Amino acid sequence: MADIAIIGAGAMGSGIGRKLVEGGANVLTYLEGRSAATLERAKAAGMQPCGLDRIVDADIVLSIVPPAEAIGVAGKFAAAARDRKEPVTFVDCNAISPDTMRLVAAAFDGSGVDVLDGSIIGLPPQPGKRGPKLYVSGDPANRSALLAGHGLDVRRIEGPVGAASALKMCYAGINKGVTGLGTAMFLAAIRSGADQSLKRELEESASDLDQKLSSGIPDMYAKAYRWVAEMEEIAAFLGKDDPVALIFKGMAGLYRKMAEDRNADGELAAQLDGLLGRE
Amino acid sequence: MADIAIIGAGAMGSGIGRKLVEGGANVLTYLEGRSAATLERAKAAGMQPCGLDRIVDADIVLSIVPPAEAIGVAGKFAAAARDRKEPVTFVDCNAISPDTMRLVAAAFDGSGVDVLDGSIIGLPPQPGKRGPKLYVSGDPANRSALLAGHGLDVRRIEGPVGAASALKMCYAGINKGVTGLGTAMFLAAIRSGADQSLKRELEESASDLDQKLSSGIPDMYAKAYRWVAEMEEIAAFLGKDDPVALIFKGMAGLYRKMAEDRNADGELAAQLDGLLGRE
Repeated sequence: MADIAIIGAGAMGSGIGRKLVEGGANVLTYLEGRSAATLERAKAAGMQPCGLDRIVDADIVLSIVPPAEAIGVAGKFAAAARDRKEPVTFVDCNAISPDTMRLVAAAFDGSGVDVLDGSIIGLPPQPGKRGPKLYVSGDPANRSALLAGHGLDVRRIEGPVGAASALKMCYAGINKGVTGLGTAMFLAAIRSGADQSLKRELEESASDLDQKLSSGIPDMYAKAYRWVAEMEEIAAFLGKDDPVALIFKGMAGLYRKMAEDRNADGELAAQLDGLLGRE
Repeated sequence: MADIAIIGAGAMGSGIGRKLVEGGANVLTYLEGRSAATLERAKAAGMQPCGLDRIVDADIVLSIVPPAEAIGVAGKFAAAARDRKEPVTFVDCNAISPDTMRLVAAAFDGSGVDVLDGSIIGLPPQPGKRGPKLYVSGDPANRSALLAGHGLDVRRIEGPVGAASALKMCYAGINKGVTGLGTAMFLAAIRSGADQSLKRELEESASDLDQKLSSGIPDMYAKAYRWVAEMEEIAAFLGKDDPVALIFKGMAGLYRKMAEDRNADGELAAQLDGLLGRE
């Protein structure tokens, strides 16, 4: 029976854990310092919480944590894995830029650990729905086959460490960028008395986009504070010489405004909901 | 028979002129200093080129010129209309910000001319296709009814001068912004070896958006140089206190890059075409 370990048991980590358990794997998780709620969620998903000394004995280890913790987790795991004799594979699945991913990989220099670049696209697995995809690059030996063999939708990218992270940046840039454009322009239209006409014009001439915005904008409010860092990471990925990086600095500012609105009186969200028929 | 005048006879001006002629109007146009080709296009559309002294006698005058010329055209027409006894209506139909529109209106202070804010959304009229819409604000007396009565798709917005211009800014911000996001992220993915995966992921999980980008991006190359100014106008519309203005400064930079690419070897466009299957 394959031993698969997941560091992190948030909505995505525990969802993927459950899927691997259903796929016949023995799923371990390392949750030191996490809340009782996280521990409960992990156990409910069929994952076995255990110490780092046991985690390093897994066949493959997935890091699924908030982006800001990715390097720290890698360093901690690399230190623990240094004395291990059996080969182990570490897959960073986090929404980090290719540069940050290369720092994660560098933490394993000389450790004998095989490091893959992973990125997850899609929502956490839900019963009866297609799960998210795990894109993987830097995997010439096809170590990720073990995950595919236990029910994950794995897509290998022919490319080095960095390519899967770049894919995630680009996909999120388009997807969350579209939501940001719609939010920004609806708010400007509301200020200018052009909001009803704008909404009707979109319904008539760009109905797909109208529908995407009508569900995507309300879904964003609660996530806006997380998206600030993600937009800044995309700006860094594009680099300061690319004028396009400015687009994502502006997006970070927009999502910061929406996060502040949520912490205050939620007036902007209420205006948007009114226009989108979500009152 | 109604006399309708159009200042400017580009693709949009002459297309709208033809539609009004077909709708039974007598359509005049003022083309002093324009090329022989423009004059021919206007005549082919059934419009009658004439001097400003005749234009001021029209019932309603539309200004359909490049955004940078909007204020100059308004000033010239206002000077010519100052001694006219009959009331005349001037509709600025250009893609200008609400602030610029208010400068256009100010050019008519004390002239007795009724100034409406218009903005055109959609492509120039084509045989067998639905024409563009002319949104109009600042029209409490419903002067634009004359245009609707001669075949134009006129949509009145309840709001002052500035609202129709704001609508155009917001609509263009979403529409051309989405094209810009796709262009920026496809180029970044190409640089990172993630382009094929990104394209396939979009096809699978956001097929509407994928289709919009697959046609919208190649259609943009030839227009990129014009879109630079339009994106800067949107940034100015949002104002320097709105972090979102940065998004459109970045968009202006992107379209500047695409315009420069077109003037040089077209390498970026070729890379995009390759990915989009347009080779």
